[in-house]
Amino acid sequence: MKILITSGGTTEKIDQVRGITNHSSGRLGKKIAEKFLAVNHQVTLVTTASAIKPKKHANLSIIEITDVNNLIETLEPLVKSHHVLIHSMAVSDYTPLYMTDLAEIEETNDLSQLLTKTNKERKISSQADYQVLFLKKTPKVISLVKQWNPSIQLIAFKLLVNVSKEELFQVARSSLKKNQADYILANDLTMISADKHLAYLLDDTNAYMAETKAEIADLIFEKVRKND
Amino acid sequence: MKILITSGGTTEKIDQVRGITNHSSGRLGKKIAEKFLAVNHQVTLVTTASAIKPKKHANLSIIEITDVNNLIETLEPLVKSHHVLIHSMAVSDYTPLYMTDLAEIEETNDLSQLLTKTNKERKISSQADYQVLFLKKTPKVISLVKQWNPSIQLIAFKLLVNVSKEELFQVARSSLKKNQADYILANDLTMISADKHLAYLLDDTNAYMAETKAEIADLIFEKVRKND
Repeated sequence: MKILITSGGTTEKIDQVRGITNHSSGRLGKKIAEKFLAVNHQVTLVTTASAIKPKKHANLSIIEITDVNNLIETLEPLVKSHHVLIHSMAVSDYTPLYMTDLAEIEETNDLSQLLTKTNKERKISSQADYQVLFLKKTPKVISLVKQWNPSIQLIAFKLLVNVSKEELFQVARSSLKKNQADYILANDLTMISADKHLAYLLDDTNAYMAETKAEIADLIFEKVRKND
Repeated sequence: MKILITSGGTTEKIDQVRGITNHSSGRLGKKIAEKFLAVNHQVTLVTTASAIKPKKHANLSIIEITDVNNLIETLEPLVKSHHVLIHSMAVSDYTPLYMTDLAEIEETNDLSQLLTKTNKERKISSQADYQVLFLKKTPKVISLVKQWNPSIQLIAFKLLVNVSKEELFQVARSSLKKNQADYILANDLTMISADKHLAYLLDDTNAYMAETKAEIADLIFEKVRKND
């Protein structure tokens, strides 16, 4: 089977030296990849430069991406040619449009004008005491997957921070439905530490609990094989 | 001699999952550290989680930091106890204060009110089409070094993007003077690629050119030994 896995976190550039990054070590994606490689599935890992990666393996291709646009370009053909997508990457939800100082905002009657501006300089000056950064929502990559390939098995991920189990399940299942995912791995940042990673693999009706990254990889591996 | 080296790039948190990062691989700091370790100097490397690091060595201590506040806390005692600081880290010049949508800005008469607000939520919602992030200038770490230890030998770094050699030298020498650095390594991002790294080590009157990271490490090593 051809398994597509994403890991790491995208970075949206502010200028040539600064960017907004979604933190994600890549550790979970690495574990999942290794699980499938161990039984000789074909694995394509789409990840980022700073993410932790599996060792070289004859059945593993690694593709590095940077930002959301780059991710979409890269994923579209891959989603069409794979049987499963396990989308553990932390994808930026906003991308920088324009950075300026407070004075320019105070002088502007119609803020929407600033949304059409771009910074000409390659490294934005650091003179002003305060700066204001305008950001625009990025396309939701996960919502495109089933449009690209309706028959791909999609394992989505939802990370929240410090919410109740009820809220986590509710938000994750709403995302599951909206994006036509087959499963969604719901987790809370406050429940993740060096050696623990509490998570629930959800479908419409069931919830399967895991307490470590290895258990999460096991759970996902089992569910994917069931549809094999 | 006790050599303090910084490498990598700091990240200023927007919320628990997003941050503004200054990109820096840590490769140059690694090379410089290895150069001094090879002749048994004592090296302390202050760096970041994602930076590339030297191999373990009996004379090497590695300390990981995250943001500018964390860097300042960490550096102050170290600057006081070392003979040389080679400050190659890319340090964030702005840190997030408050993120909101366009509507709140349009409703606010006095923008300075927004500078005193903070986001209560741990992961800022991604509903609005546009967001606005207010940022505040961080303290200039480099300007504190000689206040902490007037006798430390300070090698500063200045990275610009796509400027003339004249402008690069002028900006770097102005920073050299302002921060009482002994040398400053002036370089331009457009002159750095996988195997090339054009840079100039400047003092008040001289400029020494290097064309690779290894040559930069050699140059800095020589200048530091001269003051030994």
